[in-house]
Amino acid sequence: MTQARQGLMYAKDPHVVIVGGGFGGVAAAKALRDAPVRITLIDRTNHHLFQPLLYQVATSVLPPGDIASPIRGILRKQANVSVTLGEVTSVDKAERNVTVDLSDGTREVVTYDYLILATGARHSYFGKDEYEKHAPGLKSVADALAIRNRILRAFEQAETTEDPVKKGLLTFVLVGAGPTGVEMAGAMATLVRRTLKSSFRRINPQSARIILVDQANRILGPFSEALSKKAQKHLEGLGVEVRLGHGIESIDGDGVVVGGERIISKTVIWTAGVAASPAGKWLNAETDRAGRVHIQQDLTMAGYPEVFVIGDTASLNQDGKPLPGVAQVAMQQGRYAGKLIHRRVIGRKDMAPFRYFDKGNMAVAGGNFAVLQCRKVQLSGLLGWLPWAAIHIAYLAHSSLRLAVLVQWLWTYLTGQRGSVLVVNHHASPHQECSRQVVHPLIASGS
Amino acid sequence: MTQARQGLMYAKDPHVVIVGGGFGGVAAAKALRDAPVRITLIDRTNHHLFQPLLYQVATSVLPPGDIASPIRGILRKQANVSVTLGEVTSVDKAERNVTVDLSDGTREVVTYDYLILATGARHSYFGKDEYEKHAPGLKSVADALAIRNRILRAFEQAETTEDPVKKGLLTFVLVGAGPTGVEMAGAMATLVRRTLKSSFRRINPQSARIILVDQANRILGPFSEALSKKAQKHLEGLGVEVRLGHGIESIDGDGVVVGGERIISKTVIWTAGVAASPAGKWLNAETDRAGRVHIQQDLTMAGYPEVFVIGDTASLNQDGKPLPGVAQVAMQQGRYAGKLIHRRVIGRKDMAPFRYFDKGNMAVAGGNFAVLQCRKVQLSGLLGWLPWAAIHIAYLAHSSLRLAVLVQWLWTYLTGQRGSVLVVNHHASPHQECSRQVVHPLIASGS
Repeated sequence: MTQARQGLMYAKDPHVVIVGGGFGGVAAAKALRDAPVRITLIDRTNHHLFQPLLYQVATSVLPPGDIASPIRGILRKQANVSVTLGEVTSVDKAERNVTVDLSDGTREVVTYDYLILATGARHSYFGKDEYEKHAPGLKSVADALAIRNRILRAFEQAETTEDPVKKGLLTFVLVGAGPTGVEMAGAMATLVRRTLKSSFRRINPQSARIILVDQANRILGPFSEALSKKAQKHLEGLGVEVRLGHGIESIDGDGVVVGGERIISKTVIWTAGVAASPAGKWLNAETDRAGRVHIQQDLTMAGYPEVFVIGDTASLNQDGKPLPGVAQVAMQQGRYAGKLIHRRVIGRKDMAPFRYFDKGNMAVAGGNFAVLQCRKVQLSGLLGWLPWAAIHIAYLAHSSLRLAVLVQWLWTYLTGQRGSVLVVNHHASPHQECSRQVVHPLIASGS
Repeated sequence: MTQARQGLMYAKDPHVVIVGGGFGGVAAAKALRDAPVRITLIDRTNHHLFQPLLYQVATSVLPPGDIASPIRGILRKQANVSVTLGEVTSVDKAERNVTVDLSDGTREVVTYDYLILATGARHSYFGKDEYEKHAPGLKSVADALAIRNRILRAFEQAETTEDPVKKGLLTFVLVGAGPTGVEMAGAMATLVRRTLKSSFRRINPQSARIILVDQANRILGPFSEALSKKAQKHLEGLGVEVRLGHGIESIDGDGVVVGGERIISKTVIWTAGVAASPAGKWLNAETDRAGRVHIQQDLTMAGYPEVFVIGDTASLNQDGKPLPGVAQVAMQQGRYAGKLIHRRVIGRKDMAPFRYFDKGNMAVAGGNFAVLQCRKVQLSGLLGWLPWAAIHIAYLAHSSLRLAVLVQWLWTYLTGQRGSVLVVNHHASPHQECSRQVVHPLIASGS
């Protein structure tokens, strides 16, 4: 990166490189708004994703554009930020640089004065990576669209197949009953019972089985037992089968084995474990079991005060307990890291160590039933859902998104219809040249 | 298809098979609403697409869900229709059946009493199929998303490349200056000059060249010369370079040759010729040069009064001129075919031969400037755009879509921002298994 290409930034200013445009990375960039620094934010996608609503894309409630907005757009007015579409492949802590594979296939080495790693997490198959093929997980827009296609295709195939029940086309298994699994189960129950009602002639979508599996003895582990029970009861009222106390023994193309029982299912979705991105390997740092980098109370890596690791990529204890992998932690850490760098750059002394302020936990269990837990306050049902909806709308990064989501939710609520029930067979992208040869032109183009 | 699986329909009723869920097919199904028939509508996609606005998906104005809605949803209340997701591969006129490849990989033979072929058209490369790889066309949702990705990626690559202008990353060539080419050119001009403004730090999107090429001597052939001139002047005012009188001599990965001049461009989009779907081959019928089936005045194939061919798939002269390949013709023909079948089934005599009622032609040349030609009325500018917008909103098939499009247009108009600037790298779909191996998991999942 030559100085001449830095555009609006002053080449003499310290260079802050932020890897990742999620909640943590964007918060860090914004916190540096008035700092005399040059910022380069690198992400392998062009968009900031509002992950807490990703399950609504997977279940046809929202189109992806409603929960994702271009990182460039979010930061367009902040002249000290330059956004780069590319994938970081390594970090050289000694030389203070990161290597980036750019979207045009070339590679660039970017030096930094400060580095913020906010690369998030991927779902983990706990070493059983062969499960991924049969049980996709939900972390990106592409994931959500792939799952949406799978679910809708299962109904289409069921409509034209003899004995679809026996073939598992109308059985959906969700592996993992944390917030993602519970929200998916609730949204799918509404999809099959309300949205798809009377769309088919031979099958009855309402007869579809939705099975939520977890090896724990209750759903929604991070919540109180009372809320877990209420959410489970609500899900069961929507027709979801909740199976607890047994882990998945195997997954293949025909279904799963759980608690010794074989469940035939063509659509298995992985809503379990989360693992950190490879930042720990880049840094050759100490990590916890999930691959998250152990950091100090100022969010830097021990021995490297210029290297910050935040959000799902980092592991930090507070009051003896690890901080959860939620958006709030990432945002608060991003803001902290940005402010701390600002102070260091202008020569002021450091702030007090980072402390997470827990604003509470929420999850929707279908329809307008949510559970909300914030310190001693516990709400469920519509009373939980209203603050859930208000907070999610308020946090959606981009103002045009808020209106669109509100309109879509109102519409879905009033009519039961969902706006995003398209099955799109994608052309090969430039990176997927080979698939051109296996797809019949007519299928690829039209369906 | 066994009788037991026909659900709500009476097995003794005549069976009408409609192939294609576009404007023609859906209009035909709706016209048969009260007819004592069983209808099977077969399409290889699950959605009806509002093609006239497809260029707005390709240029990030609208998300695909705003112009496509599930065929099942449109026809859900019409109990005599069953929708099948599958691809017709052949027709046996003697045995009166069609062969369908279903989405689960199996094959089904469906017999009919009446057949309506409404399979639309694909863009044609006039025998130069090798152009497709470098110059994708615009007919399906997948096409539009692929083109959107290409355009946005070109800017991303330009931002991180030395000398992007020389590499053709900021040059966009549209081949064909009919309505699609003109609408694409206008929308792209607004995209680069308004939406992407100040999103980049190293490149200036407003410096991008948009070149519209046609071998004809004017743009918008179907319109009057006066309107062509006005539209061209408006496009040029937006910065579009219009090059007429020379066809494309070659297209490759680095650009095009036109009129002997080589134009370096990484993004070439095919907005030219249209060719019919393979229905002519299925029927072994007489076709015109573009592959469209010659039909009789009652829209049936000569010698086969039970086989109707409509819309872009058919070739029919009226007053000595072939009918144009537009939505209006398909819809009017679909309605006619449906009504005629209804009359024949209940034993009433045929209607007068089909006659197309031309409601006029419209095209947008960027922003709020449209040309409109309806018999002797010719409008241009905002005066042309207002009826254009009203008519398009009114025709959008599904009421939830209308509101969403209106909101999005207003937003775009007021702010210059567009809601659909996502680049999504898709996972391999079940049909594209092989691409799994060439895509790095981190790229595929996140970007």
